[in-house]
Amino acid sequence: MAESTDMRLRLPLLCIILEVILIILFGLLVEYNDETDAKLWNENRTHSATRNDHENEFYYRYPSFQDVHVMIFVGFGFLMTFLQRYGFSSVGFNFLIAAFSLQWATLMQGFFHGMHHGKIHVGVTSMINADFCTGSVLISFGAVLGKTSPVQLLVMAIFEVTLFAVNEFILLSILGANDAGGSMTIHTFGAYFGLVVTRVLYRPNLDKSKHRNSSVYHSDLFAMIGTIYLWMFWPSFNSAITNYGDPQHRTAMNTYYSLAACTLATFAFSALVNPEGKLDMVHIQNAALAGGVAVGTAGEMMLTAFGSMIVGFLAGTISVLGYKYLTPVLESKLKIQDTCGIHNLHGMPGVLGAIVGAVTAALATPDVYGQGLQRVFADVETGQWNPQSKGGFQAISLAVTLGMALFGGLITGLILKLPIYGAPPDAQCFEDGVYWEVPGEEEDQHELYEVATPNEVEKLSS
Amino acid sequence: MAESTDMRLRLPLLCIILEVILIILFGLLVEYNDETDAKLWNENRTHSATRNDHENEFYYRYPSFQDVHVMIFVGFGFLMTFLQRYGFSSVGFNFLIAAFSLQWATLMQGFFHGMHHGKIHVGVTSMINADFCTGSVLISFGAVLGKTSPVQLLVMAIFEVTLFAVNEFILLSILGANDAGGSMTIHTFGAYFGLVVTRVLYRPNLDKSKHRNSSVYHSDLFAMIGTIYLWMFWPSFNSAITNYGDPQHRTAMNTYYSLAACTLATFAFSALVNPEGKLDMVHIQNAALAGGVAVGTAGEMMLTAFGSMIVGFLAGTISVLGYKYLTPVLESKLKIQDTCGIHNLHGMPGVLGAIVGAVTAALATPDVYGQGLQRVFADVETGQWNPQSKGGFQAISLAVTLGMALFGGLITGLILKLPIYGAPPDAQCFEDGVYWEVPGEEEDQHELYEVATPNEVEKLSS
Amino acid sequence: MAESTDMRLRLPLLCIILEVILIILFGLLVEYNDETDAKLWNENRTHSATRNDHENEFYYRYPSFQDVHVMIFVGFGFLMTFLQRYGFSSVGFNFLIAAFSLQWATLMQGFFHGMHHGKIHVGVTSMINADFCTGSVLISFGAVLGKTSPVQLLVMAIFEVTLFAVNEFILLSILGANDAGGSMTIHTFGAYFGLVVTRVLYRPNLDKSKHRNSSVYHSDLFAMIGTIYLWMFWPSFNSAITNYGDPQHRTAMNTYYSLAACTLATFAFSALVNPEGKLDMVHIQNAALAGGVAVGTAGEMMLTAFGSMIVGFLAGTISVLGYKYLTPVLESKLKIQDTCGIHNLHGMPGVLGAIVGAVTAALATPDVYGQGLQRVFADVETGQWNPQSKGGFQAISLAVTLGMALFGGLITGLILKLPIYGAPPDAQCFEDGVYWEVPGEEEDQHELYEVATPNEVEKLSS
Repeated sequence: MAESTDMRLRLPLLCIILEVILIILFGLLVEYNDETDAKLWNENRTHSATRNDHENEFYYRYPSFQDVHVMIFVGFGFLMTFLQRYGFSSVGFNFLIAAFSLQWATLMQGFFHGMHHGKIHVGVTSMINADFCTGSVLISFGAVLGKTSPVQLLVMAIFEVTLFAVNEFILLSILGANDAGGSMTIHTFGAYFGLVVTRVLYRPNLDKSKHRNSSVYHSDLFAMIGTIYLWMFWPSFNSAITNYGDPQHRTAMNTYYSLAACTLATFAFSALVNPEGKLDMVHIQNAALAGGVAVGTAGEMMLTAFGSMIVGFLAGTISVLGYKYLTPVLESKLKIQDTCGIHNLHGMPGVLGAIVGAVTAALATPDVYGQGLQRVFADVETGQWNPQSKGGFQAISLAVTLGMALFGGLITGLILKLPIYGAPPDAQCFEDGVYWEVPGEEEDQHELYEVATPNEVEKLSS
Repeated sequence: MAESTDMRLRLPLLCIILEVILIILFGLLVEYNDETDAKLWNENRTHSATRNDHENEFYYRYPSFQDVHVMIFVGFGFLMTFLQRYGFSSVGFNFLIAAFSLQWATLMQGFFHGMHHGKIHVGVTSMINADFCTGSVLISFGAVLGKTSPVQLLVMAIFEVTLFAVNEFILLSILGANDAGGSMTIHTFGAYFGLVVTRVLYRPNLDKSKHRNSSVYHSDLFAMIGTIYLWMFWPSFNSAITNYGDPQHRTAMNTYYSLAACTLATFAFSALVNPEGKLDMVHIQNAALAGGVAVGTAGEMMLTAFGSMIVGFLAGTISVLGYKYLTPVLESKLKIQDTCGIHNLHGMPGVLGAIVGAVTAALATPDVYGQGLQRVFADVETGQWNPQSKGGFQAISLAVTLGMALFGGLITGLILKLPIYGAPPDAQCFEDGVYWEVPGEEEDQHELYEVATPNEVEKLSS
Repeated sequence: MAESTDMRLRLPLLCIILEVILIILFGLLVEYNDETDAKLWNENRTHSATRNDHENEFYYRYPSFQDVHVMIFVGFGFLMTFLQRYGFSSVGFNFLIAAFSLQWATLMQGFFHGMHHGKIHVGVTSMINADFCTGSVLISFGAVLGKTSPVQLLVMAIFEVTLFAVNEFILLSILGANDAGGSMTIHTFGAYFGLVVTRVLYRPNLDKSKHRNSSVYHSDLFAMIGTIYLWMFWPSFNSAITNYGDPQHRTAMNTYYSLAACTLATFAFSALVNPEGKLDMVHIQNAALAGGVAVGTAGEMMLTAFGSMIVGFLAGTISVLGYKYLTPVLESKLKIQDTCGIHNLHGMPGVLGAIVGAVTAALATPDVYGQGLQRVFADVETGQWNPQSKGGFQAISLAVTLGMALFGGLITGLILKLPIYGAPPDAQCFEDGVYWEVPGEEEDQHELYEVATPNEVEKLSS
């Protein structure tokens, strides 16, 4: 007998327990930082002749934060509404797990690299970082979309956020890697984590829900809202936590050019791989974004507009080809059911981004960067820096990330396989009605009335 | 006989007369302020060694303004598109009354607290304040949604904006209250004003339009666009006009945490109150925002992330319970037909926000705020400040707001009851076709053609 | 025999060739500017006592850039989704030609007014300018919407961007005109260019696709997303590249008031011109934006809120009247098939904006502008400035723009008339299915199953 999908006790219990734990931990551990605390900020301000309220980091980080925030909630949320009967869940569960993850991420990231005298200090930068970590969870959500209960998703978020923070700590604090836009920490990690989870949760009889695992006309338009917002704000995403000044400015611009070139590649290859030369919405919705992923590491470096465009073009190309040729093979041979094709949007472009980052770092010279060298590669200051070893550490970072993602995804997938979360049965996947009160369609009622009312049908048949 | 709903003369006449009056009053009364006037700005700039163009308040307020602007036009507008046949009116009338209200609010607010030598000075701060006042009108719109003509809505806006400005003046200038995010001035005022208006306009036979007073699948997705934008930008809303530096930074962050906790509470209680444990889109669309309302007063204070999360969790809880248990009672017992449930999203959370603000103010100490105390509680400077009396004034402010809202709503409701505005008949509520040219549905035509053309029907029946 | 619309070779070939050319030219010609180059920025920074990272132009231009970016990709893209079966193409082709145009514009604009020692220097300002130029192409797209292949659109973009850059160079660098918000360079140019192109591509048998050349209920709501974003962010558009300080602040505010007044005029005249007093979505979606176009030149001047509101009111009025009375005449008499009515939204309001700009410039006095005079009218510094001649140059600029647009549109139209681009046949216009894989409608399947399955039909008829 199929497991009940009733969420009446499971979901409220989990949400309330998690939020209570979060509140208690925030009460014990979290404090305003120097820029948000009334006492600290005003002490610092009056002690410094040049420091005034306009220099609060709020004014230099908050616009980027809001762009990232839009990507997390509108971008990811609506991108996944492409399924015909899963719009409520796409936007709604995205909303739920993002709201949870950003709180949990604040604690986990703070624990690993934000502790000051036993307290976690928060401000706009921790808000951006928490949103970044959340992005990683939402990437994984894309792989299991339509096949999991909200309880499962929350449990996945608990583990994934934790491992994200560990991996990020190893990369940034131990290996001294550069990864401002998260090609490795966010995209590669989130993608391979999610792919392993969906592999473990493999459903041999998923074709029972096949008729709902596709889009309709309007759902594709809703998804384009997500796509376009992700595309527009990706320059803000990649530059949100770089150093101030030229690095932030340059990162945004490199991302802008990479995405523009990626879009042309996407349209080109989408038409090319179709027998009738018709464009496929799946490609436009997803592959056009791969250019942002692929400059997530090198974006802050002196990649040049020229280099960014090459990377973007390449990313769009492999992403479309992945959707067309690789995804079906992954499903049939490796039993990886990847609903949104995150391997093509985040997986391969993320690895490409890591490699581009390693190469660009290995080619860095004081001649090109001038005094800006140490501001991009922080470890220059330690005196131990040389480009080749830096490139090597970047490559090691990619390997660590892949290892963490595969291992973490495996453990998490096994935990999620327990039959206690109310996952939908095979014939009820990709269906909002399992977890939501779904209203009728106006059109149906309308037609029943206008086209064929019961009376008319009766009359006709008599 | 039913009153005609023809808008051909009434709406153009009212719009043109109002706009001509606005233009004349702006011509007589409104001037650029020091930051927007070419002469004044450049005089000040050259007289001051440290003041340069980068310090124009534009750069520190305008990004917040744009976020607020998105909330007013996209947030409120799309949130109300949940009704199946009222999308044009929801976005369209929202657009119309917001465009009017922001002009009228500039005059009214300027008249009460922006006069300089007989002139109203305008700049980005007055733009934010005008948008805030507009928000209050749009809240009230939510209560009467579907049951009023655009002429009625404009008349309501004339009165509500005026009374809003009076109430705001009493609270901020006379009582010296803190209310940066408008828990009292915007949400409590707008909600109870609207509830009294809809009470006065009570329609005993509204069930004639019952079949249209609900959502369809796609309309719920459109509404989620509104919800998510409101949710994301609420930190900007609450912080838009606080003092620069730590207060603005802190307000945004407190709101962010309050909303995150509120979202978990909303999902928890939405599933809990449903017999099958299914989530209800009405709750997700609305109650998840209550956390922003509830920290509208205390957000700029040292509420801490911990405190914000408790308030947010509480707000989400009472909001869902309100939708489930209180709204039906308000309608059946008190004859308050509250289309959007503004009592649950703005009313109760607004009152909660006012109380939290009063308590937090009463607990303020120099030990916690340091030299920041006078920057949060401006009246510290006057030397008459003590926390308890401050808390008392906050509480009095809530009472004044409630009084103004109830009284103003009553008068306005009675004026709107006159049968001269072309309100829709009971059987035509929640219907765009009354005031809009509505195109056919592609699907209908399509089906008439594909599923059952007249010929086919004939053939079948013969 | 009709030309094949198969894009399988044409579109990929063109996209790939264009992108390869772009990449090569970027590699040869484009360099980071002083604010984005690691070496240059840090050299400048350390040589200057007062210049710190917070003064990088990124922080003062990038928020405006992102607002403009949203207008280009979401605003224009969704505004055109009003057609019932052309949503994929509206958003998708908008996306494609914008991604191409912004790269090509960077080169063309850089070539004409951004060369430094043989290199084009790029930064956030060049990004805004490239987006502006792109906007012009998208305006022209509105005229030919539904009647052109993506290959045709890309070819149009190649020519239009080039001519835009020439015209912009003549106006800004030779004639010294003011046009910060592009009433002339963007709107007038884009509109008349597009109108001539659609005139040359006149289709006498377009009524074969008449049934698709209209909206459906949901498509009108999608279009309102575009409208509202354009409306909200227009203040950012007009102010994005003005001088810092008071001009930028003033421009945003003037635009805000112009748009508000325009919206009331639009609602008034939309109801007035309808026999039953019903509002028309076409007017609300488009004419309400004319106020932004019409202050594109004068917005940075001391137009005052009063003046802005008069201009906005006028713009909304002529725009609605244009949709109602002029568009049908243009089509029947002049054979101009203007799908989106760009003549009403961009053409007439653009010319109005140019005239308002000329008059406002001619009325400028040192008494009103003080030391701000030379910051608004840069040529004051040359000593040759007087208001009347300035006004004259503004008027000449309008004439030049119209000439360039008409001539450029004619040439481009003739090139686009060649039967090699795979344009849709007359009976297949306004139809996504020509160039896109279009999914079925859920509703159809649903109904076929629920309302009248083949079996039921058979049973009924037997």
